[in-house]
Amino acid sequence: MFNQLGVIGCGLMGGSFALAMKRAGLVKRVIGYSKSPSTTEQAKKLGVIDVAAESALLAVSGSDIVLIAVPVSATEITLKAIRHLVNPGVLFMDVGSTKCDVIESARRALGDRAASFVPCHPIAGKESGGVQHAEATLYEGRQVILTPQPFTNPQLVQKATDVWSALGATVLKMRPHNHDAAFAAVSHLPHLLAFAFFQAIAEQPAARDYLSLAGPGFRDFTRIAAGEPAVWRDIFLANKHEVLAQSKRFRTMLDQLEALIEAGDAAALEAALRPISEGRSAWSLPTIPPGRPAAK
Amino acid sequence: MFNQLGVIGCGLMGGSFALAMKRAGLVKRVIGYSKSPSTTEQAKKLGVIDVAAESALLAVSGSDIVLIAVPVSATEITLKAIRHLVNPGVLFMDVGSTKCDVIESARRALGDRAASFVPCHPIAGKESGGVQHAEATLYEGRQVILTPQPFTNPQLVQKATDVWSALGATVLKMRPHNHDAAFAAVSHLPHLLAFAFFQAIAEQPAARDYLSLAGPGFRDFTRIAAGEPAVWRDIFLANKHEVLAQSKRFRTMLDQLEALIEAGDAAALEAALRPISEGRSAWSLPTIPPGRPAAK
Repeated sequence: MFNQLGVIGCGLMGGSFALAMKRAGLVKRVIGYSKSPSTTEQAKKLGVIDVAAESALLAVSGSDIVLIAVPVSATEITLKAIRHLVNPGVLFMDVGSTKCDVIESARRALGDRAASFVPCHPIAGKESGGVQHAEATLYEGRQVILTPQPFTNPQLVQKATDVWSALGATVLKMRPHNHDAAFAAVSHLPHLLAFAFFQAIAEQPAARDYLSLAGPGFRDFTRIAAGEPAVWRDIFLANKHEVLAQSKRFRTMLDQLEALIEAGDAAALEAALRPISEGRSAWSLPTIPPGRPAAK
Repeated sequence: MFNQLGVIGCGLMGGSFALAMKRAGLVKRVIGYSKSPSTTEQAKKLGVIDVAAESALLAVSGSDIVLIAVPVSATEITLKAIRHLVNPGVLFMDVGSTKCDVIESARRALGDRAASFVPCHPIAGKESGGVQHAEATLYEGRQVILTPQPFTNPQLVQKATDVWSALGATVLKMRPHNHDAAFAAVSHLPHLLAFAFFQAIAEQPAARDYLSLAGPGFRDFTRIAAGEPAVWRDIFLANKHEVLAQSKRFRTMLDQLEALIEAGDAAALEAALRPISEGRSAWSLPTIPPGRPAAK
């Protein structure tokens, strides 16, 4: 049980964490800060936070758990703003989709105090951002990746694990580099491809007609192209090398399939498509059963 | 009202058409043929067809409406097999996702008799093919594109329009070339990209780990990579030029976004992503309201 949760960045992720912590009875009071005062105000109106803080530092003051839920490029400046209150015993976490850059930011901003910062990435979200879409169940049945460093306080890592577990998530530990490589593959690249594909259609002279003919396949394939521009800008830049490396692999595979199409090689094309179709049919979203016992 | 529907190819599309026609009370009897006898047998067991025909020709004999629902590359051989019974007054339709090649096949196979053939493309389907997934409502609220030719019997075009409308679909007429260009953009290319992307991930040494970390975005983005290999082989080959042209446009857009990432140009990257995100957010699947009055 925590006395006070400080949320810096009261959007979808931060707001949902606040709601989930309250619902689980894990926190007495939530104090929130957002760069935009109207967001903080809305979060208060919606009951997502109890108190609106006037600065990030004031959201940390008196808190024994702090969640930083800002676009990853704002991590360093946020940590610098609160560094004087980053004390041992207080759990600091983030929710960034990239981890190597966040850890570097934390080292630069916090120095020795980075021991109190547990880098986290909950695999959760929705296409509609903003505190108005926050919900207490966002992290339920989801995976949360922690990427602690050798210098991270192990007691805080355990505390972070317990908190996410109590919210119904499964906690996984990974090395930051492995994390960034994996998510470049399964999340960042598909977003980049969806953005590029949607725009390649949308900028054609016949786009209006084309888009009026699109079906459910198109809808699902392009859903992630509605992602938040500022969030994805940061992710692509923070994980640039991994994303571009994954894109190269993708292009090589696309080249191979196109060569078979170009050559009109029906048998080879079918032979190439069959294992893909079977592989995708056999795959399903990793989930954990609901109602699992919550950790303390 | 028709006396007898002949279905050649009793899979998802053909089976669903049979069920829909029966449910709408538009046909007295359904006779079906599939290349694989076990499919025809299963269709009969499931009540999708009333009578199993031993050949495509026998499925046409005595029918006043015929649906050809085979992979597009099998259209020509199918039409050749039935050409002696392709008589004026009988409505012949297909469900192929490409139309220029189907029309060419019909001209070659049927000559003058091609007047009885109305090329159709219902924008409907599911990732799970096969007669066991057929359902009477598959075409409800969907669009069906007709691509009649100057030599197509206009009375049969009207009849086809009435039939699809009675099943709850909206009928649209297009030129075959425009059809193929549009569907290369909004359907064929996304399938190709999804196939290439899924395989580019699946063939990496860490694929197992990566796939265990994937979230809902990945699930939706790759859903269409489970498409039927034989169906997509045919579509990619039949619509090769349009698909490759669309892929080129896509690659150009991907190049542009990657150049901004490579350059670390945050402002330009966000400026590029914003209209895409807004465009996709504003788009929704074209649907027609349920319960609209059915045509005769």
